[in-house]
Amino acid sequence: MNKAFLFVLLVVLLSFSVFCSAPKYVFFFIGDGMGLAQINAAQLYKSSMVNAEQPKLHMLTLPVKGMQTTHSYDSFITDSAPAGTALATGYKTKNGVIGLDPTLKYRLETIAEFLLKKGKKIGIISSVSIDHATPASFYAHQASRNDYYEIAIEMVNSGFHFFAGGGFIYPEGKKGDQLSIYELAKNRDYTLIQTYEGFSKLTPSTGKVIVINSVLDSSKAMPYDIDRQTGEFSLVEITEKAIDFLDNEKGFFLMVEGGKIDWACHANDAAATIHDTLIFDESIKVALDFLQKHPQETLILVTGDHETGGLSIGFAGTKYEANVPLIGLQKISFQDFDNVLATLKEEKRLSSLNDLYPAIEEAFGLVPSKDKASNGKIAMSEYDIERLEKAFQDYVKQYDSKNEKSYLLYGGYNALSVTLTHILNEKAGLGWTTYSHTGVPVPVYAIGNSSDAFAGYYDNTDIGKTLFSLYR
Amino acid sequence: MNKAFLFVLLVVLLSFSVFCSAPKYVFFFIGDGMGLAQINAAQLYKSSMVNAEQPKLHMLTLPVKGMQTTHSYDSFITDSAPAGTALATGYKTKNGVIGLDPTLKYRLETIAEFLLKKGKKIGIISSVSIDHATPASFYAHQASRNDYYEIAIEMVNSGFHFFAGGGFIYPEGKKGDQLSIYELAKNRDYTLIQTYEGFSKLTPSTGKVIVINSVLDSSKAMPYDIDRQTGEFSLVEITEKAIDFLDNEKGFFLMVEGGKIDWACHANDAAATIHDTLIFDESIKVALDFLQKHPQETLILVTGDHETGGLSIGFAGTKYEANVPLIGLQKISFQDFDNVLATLKEEKRLSSLNDLYPAIEEAFGLVPSKDKASNGKIAMSEYDIERLEKAFQDYVKQYDSKNEKSYLLYGGYNALSVTLTHILNEKAGLGWTTYSHTGVPVPVYAIGNSSDAFAGYYDNTDIGKTLFSLYR
Repeated sequence: MNKAFLFVLLVVLLSFSVFCSAPKYVFFFIGDGMGLAQINAAQLYKSSMVNAEQPKLHMLTLPVKGMQTTHSYDSFITDSAPAGTALATGYKTKNGVIGLDPTLKYRLETIAEFLLKKGKKIGIISSVSIDHATPASFYAHQASRNDYYEIAIEMVNSGFHFFAGGGFIYPEGKKGDQLSIYELAKNRDYTLIQTYEGFSKLTPSTGKVIVINSVLDSSKAMPYDIDRQTGEFSLVEITEKAIDFLDNEKGFFLMVEGGKIDWACHANDAAATIHDTLIFDESIKVALDFLQKHPQETLILVTGDHETGGLSIGFAGTKYEANVPLIGLQKISFQDFDNVLATLKEEKRLSSLNDLYPAIEEAFGLVPSKDKASNGKIAMSEYDIERLEKAFQDYVKQYDSKNEKSYLLYGGYNALSVTLTHILNEKAGLGWTTYSHTGVPVPVYAIGNSSDAFAGYYDNTDIGKTLFSLYR
Repeated sequence: MNKAFLFVLLVVLLSFSVFCSAPKYVFFFIGDGMGLAQINAAQLYKSSMVNAEQPKLHMLTLPVKGMQTTHSYDSFITDSAPAGTALATGYKTKNGVIGLDPTLKYRLETIAEFLLKKGKKIGIISSVSIDHATPASFYAHQASRNDYYEIAIEMVNSGFHFFAGGGFIYPEGKKGDQLSIYELAKNRDYTLIQTYEGFSKLTPSTGKVIVINSVLDSSKAMPYDIDRQTGEFSLVEITEKAIDFLDNEKGFFLMVEGGKIDWACHANDAAATIHDTLIFDESIKVALDFLQKHPQETLILVTGDHETGGLSIGFAGTKYEANVPLIGLQKISFQDFDNVLATLKEEKRLSSLNDLYPAIEEAFGLVPSKDKASNGKIAMSEYDIERLEKAFQDYVKQYDSKNEKSYLLYGGYNALSVTLTHILNEKAGLGWTTYSHTGVPVPVYAIGNSSDAFAGYYDNTDIGKTLFSLYR
């Protein structure tokens, strides 16, 4: 009787110790600017893809669901700096501030810094520059998110093991007169990898690494996924490599940011938004495969830091109809189309809108009249053409983005590209209200060890606080 | 030892029976068209009200929170008929259909019909006509939500105890040649009350009643709450009376629809939206007071049936700033302003936009230049005036709403009124994408008996299914 009792007690205690210990492996996926509409639009698009292995977004298969409010300390509409800080530290701060309290007096410890001290390996991945607000929120403490050089210095001083994705905005400071961040990184024992070959050969024995994608845009970000060429790496390959690199007996913490979802939303480009959401979602699949092998020890957390663009599935002109798969007609991002335009202009092949129709058809599947709308191409309406003619003039004469009407029309973007994404988005039943962020709550998805703690409706700071509480 | 064991067992069983019995009193609050942005906007506005007893929306104080997807059987963007049917029956159906399956063959039992059979009293309240899609979803079964007379006949045959709010759209059929619904109601033992005096004197002994608000608009709906005059009843008084009227030993089921939230969103009128959301929220307070008295036996459930308008807190022109309290400058709804315009036109006092500025200032707090912007009034920009001039011409010449550009600008509404609400909304940082519904998920709030069942992220049909499961 006594022995049986002791045995049962032992079994209970053992189960308790397995199930109640904090997660050994933590994946924190942050879709920048990713709200409900972005996720829903990506889901509707994926459902229509004939080559999708499974039609449901991986993030939507996670069993635990929550919602988080995103306001910052001083604004209902947050930017990514206080949003990232709330997720990483559990505290609100002012717009523009990273890892400091609103008075700028106190340094807020991040969950990544904390878990590093606990012996875990730390990885930070972003599809935008690695010194950008969201990744920086996990390792930096700066009054301004724009102090990219200072942020980069904190990065190479962080001791984190794996940084990957985009590059550095000011590797030698704003004026280009500071010590090179690449030199400083080397001094801190970081290996810098800038080729796919180097990336492929990377092993845990390399020590600490900074992997900068081979292809970067002018903002030092990885390309929009819709523009990714065959053979180029995406968030998926980087996430796979990060896991191989970080896996060790004490576990790891890996943050993966889908940073270009936000940038695509700023530009009101639904196709680029959806493609970047889909590749972000595929990187979640990589973590889910890892969780299959370590189901008791792994926590996967997915959320956005705020919504960008005021995206809705529902547009005035299409009323109750939404046909999101039409977005598939777009083949390149607004940014690549900007380049197409620049080339045509340079080559003096852009004297009228007519010159542009072949390129528009190729990039957006939009044609100027019904008789040309074969193969599922969409004929633009008279009003579309009217808008496009105006955008053409505004592009040629380089519109003043400070003019209120022009800003509302184009948000400072290339007048033609943004008008074309607007037209195609509208045909698909997608509408935008802004080129900035909005203040609506965003969803949270979780699975694995301690994931139940992320169910419900709460504030973004609760996510940071909960992560800390798992280890305290 | 045996006695002690039996005693403990008895206590456990008793507690079980109290805590596990299904709710005796069910309140189901449906904010038509009420999504996250509508609630957030109302919250931001309420926080700025100096006379608010407590600054938080009552619905946001409910401890259980969920999210529901709203798509119908055949459309990602639902209308109120299948949305109401999902909430009331637990099943999806096609857009436009009420209380029937998608093949139109099967009659779907509603939770209200089911609980009537269980001996509960049933009440249905709506601020729009009582034969409208959402209230009808609880008592009617029709292939088309537009068959208002047939719906009304089902209503008077329902045996439900309390109907209140708006009136009937076709009380004598579409052609006015059918038996009066008032006569039919009388034959079914309903007392018809159409005066505030009659309403005030109403007691449970009256039997079954249909209360039609004294003041109705041309669509047989109660006025927008922003237009309600002193002494007129709101959803609050009607909810209070419903509770007095329905309370009995076997309990009750009361559905309260804030139906004009949706209508205000269709018209892109944020002020009317917010005021109707606030009065809807105050009617929830009435239920919360009741729950205080019957905490173990009462369930309060609050949700929207879908989102309307693609509202976001975040507008292109205001970027990261949102100043929702500016909405307080608007004193009447777009609809009342339509009437102001009609009167001015009739009296031939509307020869130019200049004639209208005093009325615009009074109704919307918008003035044509900075030197007139005293007392917190807002000066319109050059671009605002340009839009308003165009709207004035389009109003005077009665624009063709089938023209694409005009529809996008005005959605079929009065060109001047909708342009003015757009301008004021934009100043407050609020943007819209459509004059119809959208497909984004909407929140659910719950408190009381069995409320935990409504936490999480699920489909609208799960709400109907869960309600049934509590009693099966």
